[in-house]
Amino acid sequence: MLKVPDHQVAGHEAGLGKLGPLIDDSGRFYKPLQGDNRGSEEVAFYESFSSNSHIPEHIRKFFPMYYGTKIMKASTGVDHPHMVLQDLTSARVNPSVMDIKIGSRTWAPDASEAYIAKCLKKDRESTSIPLGFRLSGLQVYIDDESRFYKPDRNYIRKTGPDDVRLLLRKFVSSNPSADMEMGTGSGPGPDCSLASSVYDGPNGILAQLLELKAWFEDQTFYHFYACSFLFVYEKRLGLKGALSNAEVKLIDFAHVTDGNGVIDHNFLGGLCSLTKFISDILTEIKDCTGTNGQVEL
Amino acid sequence: MLKVPDHQVAGHEAGLGKLGPLIDDSGRFYKPLQGDNRGSEEVAFYESFSSNSHIPEHIRKFFPMYYGTKIMKASTGVDHPHMVLQDLTSARVNPSVMDIKIGSRTWAPDASEAYIAKCLKKDRESTSIPLGFRLSGLQVYIDDESRFYKPDRNYIRKTGPDDVRLLLRKFVSSNPSADMEMGTGSGPGPDCSLASSVYDGPNGILAQLLELKAWFEDQTFYHFYACSFLFVYEKRLGLKGALSNAEVKLIDFAHVTDGNGVIDHNFLGGLCSLTKFISDILTEIKDCTGTNGQVEL
Repeated sequence: MLKVPDHQVAGHEAGLGKLGPLIDDSGRFYKPLQGDNRGSEEVAFYESFSSNSHIPEHIRKFFPMYYGTKIMKASTGVDHPHMVLQDLTSARVNPSVMDIKIGSRTWAPDASEAYIAKCLKKDRESTSIPLGFRLSGLQVYIDDESRFYKPDRNYIRKTGPDDVRLLLRKFVSSNPSADMEMGTGSGPGPDCSLASSVYDGPNGILAQLLELKAWFEDQTFYHFYACSFLFVYEKRLGLKGALSNAEVKLIDFAHVTDGNGVIDHNFLGGLCSLTKFISDILTEIKDCTGTNGQVEL
Repeated sequence: MLKVPDHQVAGHEAGLGKLGPLIDDSGRFYKPLQGDNRGSEEVAFYESFSSNSHIPEHIRKFFPMYYGTKIMKASTGVDHPHMVLQDLTSARVNPSVMDIKIGSRTWAPDASEAYIAKCLKKDRESTSIPLGFRLSGLQVYIDDESRFYKPDRNYIRKTGPDDVRLLLRKFVSSNPSADMEMGTGSGPGPDCSLASSVYDGPNGILAQLLELKAWFEDQTFYHFYACSFLFVYEKRLGLKGALSNAEVKLIDFAHVTDGNGVIDHNFLGGLCSLTKFISDILTEIKDCTGTNGQVEL
C-alpha cells in the first residue's frame, strides 16, 4: 500500500496532482524521476555508486540502499518512472529529522549559466556561502501530545548563522520550541538534553561525520553538489540513556559529477564547518555542566 | 640600499614609474599599500594577527613577520606608505618559489557586486573552482648556468588541472623544463628527484600543510580570501640529501575578513585539495621506484 511519507522535512512533496515521493510498508521509498536531466543523473549516480568496488563498506552504510528503477503509478495518478530506494525512516516510530544541504557552492562547474545564476543567488541569500551548508528542513519530536516541532519552510529558508546554531541545539532538545539561546538571560532556552546521546559518543552524529570526513579527504570519484545530510534519531531511546540510534545519511544526488581525480573540496569544507558547529555545542554543554553533557534542569 | 626583489613570482612588480614591493639588505620586504581599501585592510589584518594572543606559536611561524608601516620613497620615486614585512627569501641564494592562491572562492561575502563578478569570472576561468586553488607563479632553480625555469605568467594563468599536476612535479624536479608527464611515453618527464626532500618527511611541505590544516579545522578568527601559500626551498641543500629547508608561508591578506565563529571552510577545502595533490605525487613516486622517493635515473 503506497502512501505519502510521514517524516519528509524537505524537497518536493507528493499531493493532489503533485509529483512527490511515496513509501510502502516494506521499507521502500519511491522517488519519481524529475522531468529535466536531474532524474536520469541521479539514477546514473546510484548505478555508478552501487557498482563501484572502491567504496569501502563503512562508507556505503551512509548511503540509501538502491533497488533500481520502476515505472509505477505516481502520486499524480499517472504512470511515471521512480527510483526504488531504502526508506530511511521506516524503522522509526517518531523520528527527529534534519536535512542539511552541504557545500558553499551548490552548482557544478559545467552547469548552465542560468542554473548557476539561480543557485548562486540562493547560496548567497542563505547560509551556504558564510557557513558552507544550509538547513533545508527539520522536525523534532516533543512528546505524544505535542508531537513535532516543525518550523515553517519559509522560516528555514531565511535562517542566518545564529538561527542555524540555535536550530542545531533545538534538534537535540526536549523543549525545541524554546526560543532563547541557552544562558542569554530572559527565559529558558533549548535544553540540549539529548546532545550527548545524539551528537556525542562512538555512535553519535559527530563520530559519523568524522568517519565521512576521512573518506572525503581522500576520495576523488564524485563531487556531490547540492547533496544533503539527513540526520535521524529516535528521541525515546535517547532519553532512556540508551543509544539514540542517531544516523547520518547522504541523500539527493541529482547534481553529482565525476571527481576527475580531485577531492570534493567544496563538500569537505562544508562538512568540516558543520562538524565544528556540532563539536562547539558539545563543548559548550560540557563547559556549562561540568558533566557528560546532560544539562542539569 | 633598497632594490626590487629578485625572487618575486607573482603580484605587482616594481618598475619604472610602477608601484611594487622593495627589499633591503637587512631582510625586510616593503610592500606599498594599494590605493583602494586593500592596503589598509591588509595592515588591519597584520595588526590584528600580531596582537591576537590565541594564535599558537607553531602557527605564527607560517606568517611573515610584521614590523609596522612606514612612509618611504616608493619604487615610483615618490613618498608612499609601505608595510614593513619579513623578506621571505632573504636567507636564500637560489630559491625555488611557488605561489598558490587558495580557495575555490576568492571573494568575501560582503564584497561589492562588481568585485564579486570580477573574481567569480577569474575563479571559473582558472582552476580555483575545479581544484580549490590556482597557481599564481613559480620559479624552479636548475643550475648556475641555466638559472631558473620560470614559466610565463600568461601560461600560468591558463593552466588547467593537468598542468597544475605537472607544475607541482616540475617544482621538485632537476629538469623542470621537461614537458612530458612521467611514464607517459615519448620522452623523459620531470624527474621529481627532490620530491622526497621537499614535499616529504617531518619538515617537508606536506607535513607543514597538515599542521596548518589542523589549525584551519578549528580556527574561527579569520577567513582568508584570495590569500596565497608561498612554497620556498633551496635546491642545493635538497640535492645533497640534507634538509631542503622547505618552507610554507601564507601571504597576501588584503581580503581577510572576520571569521565570526565559523571556520574558513573555503580555505580549508582548497588546502585539503592541494594536500591531496602533493601526497598523490609522493605516492606515485614511491609506487614507481619502490624506494623512498628518489627516482632511479
